[in-house]
Amino acid sequence: MASGEPANALGRLSREELLALATRVLHANGLGLEDAGEAAEILVLADLFGISTHGVERLPSYVDRMRTGGVDPAAAVTIETVAPALLRVDGNNGLGPVVGQKALRACLAAARQTGLAAAFVRGSNHFGPTIPYTYLATQQGFASIVASNATTTIAPTGGRGARLGNNPLGIGVPNPKGDPVILDMAMSVVARAKIRRAAASGQAIPPTWATDREGQPTASPHEALEGFLLPFGGYKGYGLALMVDLLTGLLSDAAYLTHVSSWVDSPQDPQNLGHFFLCIDTGRLGSQAWLGAAMQDFVGILKDTPATDPAHPVLVPGEMEMNAFKRNSREGIAIPAPLLEKLKAIAR
Amino acid sequence: MASGEPANALGRLSREELLALATRVLHANGLGLEDAGEAAEILVLADLFGISTHGVERLPSYVDRMRTGGVDPAAAVTIETVAPALLRVDGNNGLGPVVGQKALRACLAAARQTGLAAAFVRGSNHFGPTIPYTYLATQQGFASIVASNATTTIAPTGGRGARLGNNPLGIGVPNPKGDPVILDMAMSVVARAKIRRAAASGQAIPPTWATDREGQPTASPHEALEGFLLPFGGYKGYGLALMVDLLTGLLSDAAYLTHVSSWVDSPQDPQNLGHFFLCIDTGRLGSQAWLGAAMQDFVGILKDTPATDPAHPVLVPGEMEMNAFKRNSREGIAIPAPLLEKLKAIAR
Repeated sequence: MASGEPANALGRLSREELLALATRVLHANGLGLEDAGEAAEILVLADLFGISTHGVERLPSYVDRMRTGGVDPAAAVTIETVAPALLRVDGNNGLGPVVGQKALRACLAAARQTGLAAAFVRGSNHFGPTIPYTYLATQQGFASIVASNATTTIAPTGGRGARLGNNPLGIGVPNPKGDPVILDMAMSVVARAKIRRAAASGQAIPPTWATDREGQPTASPHEALEGFLLPFGGYKGYGLALMVDLLTGLLSDAAYLTHVSSWVDSPQDPQNLGHFFLCIDTGRLGSQAWLGAAMQDFVGILKDTPATDPAHPVLVPGEMEMNAFKRNSREGIAIPAPLLEKLKAIAR
Repeated sequence: MASGEPANALGRLSREELLALATRVLHANGLGLEDAGEAAEILVLADLFGISTHGVERLPSYVDRMRTGGVDPAAAVTIETVAPALLRVDGNNGLGPVVGQKALRACLAAARQTGLAAAFVRGSNHFGPTIPYTYLATQQGFASIVASNATTTIAPTGGRGARLGNNPLGIGVPNPKGDPVILDMAMSVVARAKIRRAAASGQAIPPTWATDREGQPTASPHEALEGFLLPFGGYKGYGLALMVDLLTGLLSDAAYLTHVSSWVDSPQDPQNLGHFFLCIDTGRLGSQAWLGAAMQDFVGILKDTPATDPAHPVLVPGEMEMNAFKRNSREGIAIPAPLLEKLKAIAR
């Protein structure tokens, strides 16, 4: 973009503008103003981090689900303190980012008292990527683990049948002297969307991405779309995806494995997704000066590793996202014109 | 083995016999009787689970390290409650499994009060595999996450230089109606020992296991041993290994990354390894009947997945280890004669 041009002339919206628009969309479709603002914050953070597939682009499908009754925009999220450091949250089929924000805030409040706390969440829906939650926790000095289960797409190692979701897992650690380190990963080698793009453009896929419906590795994106995603790292990724479902789904008394209904196949049914939030007050472990110095040292040791290809220095988790965050905060967030029109239409 | 034969005639020791022998070894080399028994329990559990590389086979090197002064057999482990649910543990360079047992017990006691609790551990040493700890927690009704950092062997994605340890990560969930589900995994595709065996037998290795010293994938085990282990699952495994070091090493104020000194290169130096223990009281989340029914359903859904190869049904994490546990508990634990002789010698 030409520097000096006002952002809006280039189709870029400031964080505040996008937040206001996303809030209007949700409020116009049944969410209370406060809930709408909280959910909008999660989606706009995703866009700021450059994860546009999980940003405001999701609003039309969120609105569809609320209109068909699959998600209750007026749900009252209930929070039960079952022990000083242990919360059970029931989203009562509310919008995922609303449930997630309330669970995170309650978990942070409990962890301020007890040093660390966890929230087990049931009755929820797609809550966006994990990085907005882990990022918000780091901004208050908390390390965190945030995870969710999801509609099944992955077959267990050695099996043919979708039994596990992509179960996103996030871990964040604050850095008082620089950028937080934040991992946000899903359990498949690649997202299904990447296989759909290969199918649309007629390209083969690596046989490590997915299997056909018989459970055999395939280079055909079409066979892959009828088959199952492979977990990253083979049986280790399978094991991790499964444990994430135990923590998020089973222990939360939410749906798990094949009990999670598909958003696509039955949009009118509650999904009863489960989430897990763990917040750790780093201030109880040492001073800000200690943590900042240690984090800068830690990141420095990794960044100083000689690169195999000098054009591609070693990265730390969250580095690309934090760079996108700064760029998009400065220059505005690019929203494709058709999406912008659609959002304005459903905000009325 | 021929059924009906007394176990000892086949070189098998009962759990109690092996526990007594391992306790004698450690007590004869400077540990108090109680500490010796606690550490021996971890090693014997590893042997029961069939993980003989992390069982009593480790005792000779543990004893060596205590004799050279690298580990202090008489260390007093200190436990500080920095918040109701948050403990800081300093092993003061004690034997790893002693430090691990005391941290786990303190963490369980705190979690009984607050619903969940964590212990951040510094000043420790190699604490064995994670599965004995997660298993012990499940036997008291606790889900847990247990992890440690380790001497560096893994290069960051895109880097050439060992910066990360194999950082074992364990997650366990109890099952009141059947076997617990327990994941115990390290962060490299394979252990270094597997590459050493390939080198000894003159076999090539898959190029996905390790790189040469320039960071290029290699099929030569000799080049691999001069190079770096690859993390499982590419950059996702790298990210997870790094986050485990932040949780276990940095947040515990222990050594991390290249600050961890090598047991092999400098056996006389304290390693200052860090561990992380998180214990969750499942009794606060629901009844034993609810948990048992849900766990049986969860495991059943996975086990019922049609197998790609009917000879190899789908497994759940910990299934092979629990099967070994039952077999070894029944038939005794096979200890090679030379190792048995060595253990008897250092027990004097």
